[in-house]
Amino acid sequence: MPAIDKYNSRVDKVNSLLCVGLDPDFEKLPERFKKLEHPQFEFNKWIIDQTVELVSAFKPNMGAYEARGGAGWRDLQMTMDYLRRNFPDVFTISDAKRGDIGYTNELYARAILDELGFDAVTLHPYLGQEALEPFLSRADKGCIILCRTSNPGASELQDLEFNGQKLWQIVAGRVSKDWNKNQNCMLVVGATYPMELAEVRKITGDMTFLVPGIGTQGGSVSQVMKAGLNSSGKGLVINSSKGIIFSSNPKAEAKKLRDEINQYRNV
Amino acid sequence: MPAIDKYNSRVDKVNSLLCVGLDPDFEKLPERFKKLEHPQFEFNKWIIDQTVELVSAFKPNMGAYEARGGAGWRDLQMTMDYLRRNFPDVFTISDAKRGDIGYTNELYARAILDELGFDAVTLHPYLGQEALEPFLSRADKGCIILCRTSNPGASELQDLEFNGQKLWQIVAGRVSKDWNKNQNCMLVVGATYPMELAEVRKITGDMTFLVPGIGTQGGSVSQVMKAGLNSSGKGLVINSSKGIIFSSNPKAEAKKLRDEINQYRNV
Repeated sequence: MPAIDKYNSRVDKVNSLLCVGLDPDFEKLPERFKKLEHPQFEFNKWIIDQTVELVSAFKPNMGAYEARGGAGWRDLQMTMDYLRRNFPDVFTISDAKRGDIGYTNELYARAILDELGFDAVTLHPYLGQEALEPFLSRADKGCIILCRTSNPGASELQDLEFNGQKLWQIVAGRVSKDWNKNQNCMLVVGATYPMELAEVRKITGDMTFLVPGIGTQGGSVSQVMKAGLNSSGKGLVINSSKGIIFSSNPKAEAKKLRDEINQYRNV
Repeated sequence: MPAIDKYNSRVDKVNSLLCVGLDPDFEKLPERFKKLEHPQFEFNKWIIDQTVELVSAFKPNMGAYEARGGAGWRDLQMTMDYLRRNFPDVFTISDAKRGDIGYTNELYARAILDELGFDAVTLHPYLGQEALEPFLSRADKGCIILCRTSNPGASELQDLEFNGQKLWQIVAGRVSKDWNKNQNCMLVVGATYPMELAEVRKITGDMTFLVPGIGTQGGSVSQVMKAGLNSSGKGLVINSSKGIIFSSNPKAEAKKLRDEINQYRNV
């Protein structure tokens, strides 16, 4: 099944555009998990079991696992195995932000899409379409290209203007017109830049966006929903990480955010 | 010791600008290594022992290890431990091409610079200086920012012109003027684009460049040397990966390339 169809089916099934970021920084884990043999996996399993019926996607942040080396990678693999075995219709995003020459991208695609078995991966656009072909050619997998990122300094390069078009506008245009021949491209557009989000929606039609930056980064749900929904009332994967997983009640936080999002969907 | 001083000391000691890329794609390893418990580590050790006296740097490509998951990560850790224990003055570069928001970059910096112990790491510029601070603030470590990459499709975004300046020229200027306050920045400039290399040299003064693309990608040593040397006859980390490590005689290939490079250095 094409990746975006898988995501949309899950959205309809659980009536949610929410993605929970599985960023289990070991230093921030509750003490009871730190002592276990597989602390990040056990923490993730606890989060997944509480929130899965409220979410359409989970997005592990690769940095949180790599910080623990081989042990972290094993916990990530166990997390992915757990998700695929128990909740195979939940969409999974590797927040890896990879982007290398084609030969190396083949290795990363093997690691992330095949060995770990993710449905989609976040990618840097800087090397261009040609370099990303090992990802773009995987019609069954989602390629989520960085367009306008959520960080405070995003404008430094992304706002550079070329013939009246900013770099993020050019990326949005290229990806939606040229890179998307397998209908498997998505874009990263930060919740912290709702005006840019509205503009990317205009440029790309009904393309689906991964939207980080809600919660601790300060993005507003109402602004994101007004700016970003597509014509079928979807088109957004709205991520929250630390605001949910490190809260005192992850299930309640996920439900609250899912419901707040749905207020703007007329569902 | 600042990272670039470490590199330059090694260049003087062994009279070499050569970097060997440790990209041990498991599928391409000689059969005798595939059967071992730590195939990538044992292969790397074999390459290191043959070539170390001819090289100033080794550059593991993270994708080659991640393709084997936790087992690959362990082999990489063993490789780094072996290098630091036996050849502590050799410069080590993690070819990771990372670049995320600041919070996640802290995790990647912990993984790559602290746990694995690399001297330097390759980074994407797309999120800007602010996001890269967890790397840039590490005065003892090298931050090697992608500027003009070696791949055939590099021009798609990197050649976009903003007020008469191409994106790679803007990146070169920003990194050398603003991002380099700790004197720990370097740039990636592909050997396959010698005219751009000459221009980046003009923009950045004596900055050191990591130059991939010699060998299987088709870059020319003579063009790189004429375009890229800095005023002290250094300023280049010239990488070759597959052309050396998968040749029938890695030591002879490394010596040949080291000597070819030195023809243009008057040393």
